[in-house]
Parts: sequence; structure tokens; C-alpha cells
Amino acid sequence: MDALECIMTRRTIRRFADSPVADEDLHEMIEAVRMAPSWANTQCVSLVVVKDPEIKTALQGTLPQGNPARNGVVEAPCVIALCAKKGLSGYYNGEPATPFGDWFLFDAGLACQNLALAAHAMGYGVVNVGLMDQQAASSILKLPEGMVCLELLPLGRPAVIPEKAPERKPVAELVYENSFGEALRSK
Amino acid sequence: MDALECIMTRRTIRRFADSPVADEDLHEMIEAVRMAPSWANTQCVSLVVVKDPEIKTALQGTLPQGNPARNGVVEAPCVIALCAKKGLSGYYNGEPATPFGDWFLFDAGLACQNLALAAHAMGYGVVNVGLMDQQAASSILKLPEGMVCLELLPLGRPAVIPEKAPERKPVAELVYENSFGEALRSK
Repeated sequence: MDALECIMTRRTIRRFADSPVADEDLHEMIEAVRMAPSWANTQCVSLVVVKDPEIKTALQGTLPQGNPARNGVVEAPCVIALCAKKGLSGYYNGEPATPFGDWFLFDAGLACQNLALAAHAMGYGVVNVGLMDQQAASSILKLPEGMVCLELLPLGRPAVIPEKAPERKPVAELVYENSFGEALRSK
Repeated sequence: MDALECIMTRRTIRRFADSPVADEDLHEMIEAVRMAPSWANTQCVSLVVVKDPEIKTALQGTLPQGNPARNGVVEAPCVIALCAKKGLSGYYNGEPATPFGDWFLFDAGLACQNLALAAHAMGYGVVNVGLMDQQAASSILKLPEGMVCLELLPLGRPAVIPEKAPERKPVAELVYENSFGEALRSK
């Protein structure tokens, strides 16, 4: 699939077909995550690939009742837990280098988008589940001290592909030129 | 360019050719940012496209002397300032919904990777500059209260393309199955 088409046609997938994720496809997605850039190449991101039905069910329990991705965590053949080691990204000589402290969320975002796009390019889909009990999930996955699970990504073949993406704000409210509030002059 | 090839061959670009970014290509990159997912579609990310040489020079001053991307900020025909509104992403009913507080860094990471991949697909490159004085950059760009500039992304045609990406840790140290420390069984 063409890269620009992949970016534009990716949709959040919440319902999954009863079809496994092929090992070679999973490995491509892992390579995509591996090749994502990171703060000074600190590579704080790790993945836990969950296929065990009992562990998927336990992870489902970390989502609040109202979360629309709740079924997906069990329905998907595979749940990718996006994890990160704290205290690496955004640090310089052991101290936070910016006003934003730990940048693990940023590097996880970079890696996560590579994963979502690689998945979509091969006919799979994911949903980003961030509204959950991260502490409980980290404990279920037996993460060591200093590492956190920040998101769950149910992954599989889409059962339903939303035709439209959720509405985005217009370009005029997203992009400015030279300083905030100045309209983009590039036509 | 094929999507998986795009993900695998993207490199951080620090030296730029004296060649502009075509308006239609810039618009493709903006659409890529626009289509990135975000926490409950809150869309906290904004961009400021800087082409004005004086503002680029002012932004260069927000990087410490040792930063290898320092030349790129002035050399690149265009610098994309990646900005975000705080207090939207990661919130639920006005309160942080997770132990990680504001997720603007995560959503900015998702958007940023879409931008980098769209740029690469069209023959451009960027470098992520996070080690800088964010407060000074936000002031130069006249960002309103509650909005921050978190990264600068010099953007242009590469003058030099690094053949190899910086070394990544092996898959065995990146991915586990079912719980942390358990080797991936999917072959």
C-alpha cells in the first residue's frame, strides 16, 4: 500500500474478525516499532504481545465499563501492550532536559503510529486504549519497577471498517505560518 | 513509496539541500498530521510553519550550542514547530484520567510520525529537535497561554541521507509475550 494512502485511510478499528495475526506480519509490525526514532536513541519503548485468553480477559478488566474498546480487548486475536521505561527519554545527564519531564509518552506515540500504519498496510487494524487502569495492567503484565504499560492496542483483521474518520478541525485552525494566528500563506 | 518501505527507510535528516518545500507537498504533510488519531479526538496538536529567515534564526537560538541539529534549523527551507494545547489529551471531565497527566506528548508523537513519514514518502526529511528552550520558542512563535511548542522539525530535501539508522536493540529486548521477560513465541 502507498505510504500516503496508508496514512490517510487508517481508521481506528474496534471490532475484529475471528482471524489470527500471521507471525510474519506481526514481525513486520515489530520491526516498524523498532525503527521508530526516539529521544537520543534511548529506545524506552517495549511491547508485550498478549495472545493468552486469560491474560486478555484480565487486561479487559483494566478498562472502565463505558470504554467502547472493551470488547475489542477480548475479541482481537492479539493485544499489544505498549510499555515504556521511565527516566530515559527527555533526560540529559540524568536530569529532565525540558519543562515537560519524561518524554516517554512522545516516543511511545512515535512508535505507536509506526505500528498502526504497518498494521493497516497489511490489512490489520488497532484501537488506541489509553483510558484504563495503567497500574493494574502493568501488574498483570509483570512489568519491572520503573516500567509502565501506557496503552493497550487490540490488533486484528477488522470486522467493521469505519468509512469516515472522526471529524477533524479545518486546516485553518491547525496550521499557522511564522507565528500563531497568522494564516498559512503557502497555497 | 510503499508504506512499509517508508517506515523502514526513514532516516533523521540534519543537512538540507538549498531547495524549497513545494506547497502541494507541504499540504500533504499537513493532511497527514490532521489525520493522526488523538485522545478522544481532542486534536490538541497545532503546527507553525516557519519560513521567515529572521524567525528561523531566532528559533535557532533556542537550541543549545552542542545540538547537532542547530545548523539545520537555519539551513532547512522550512521549520515546522510542533505545538500542543495543554489540558485536553488524557483528560476526562476536566481531570487527568491516567497517572500520566497530560497526554499532549503522546498525541504529538502520533502526529509527528505521520508528518515524518509523509515527508519521507515525498523525498523530504526532518529531524526531531526536542532539546531546546521550549519557553523561548513558544514566545518567539507568539503562542497563546496554555499552548506550548514542544519540538522544532527542520524540513527539506536531504543534502545527506545517513545510510544506516542508529543501532536499535534486538527484538528479544524489545518484545515479550504474555508477560514481561517471556520470549516471543511467534516465530
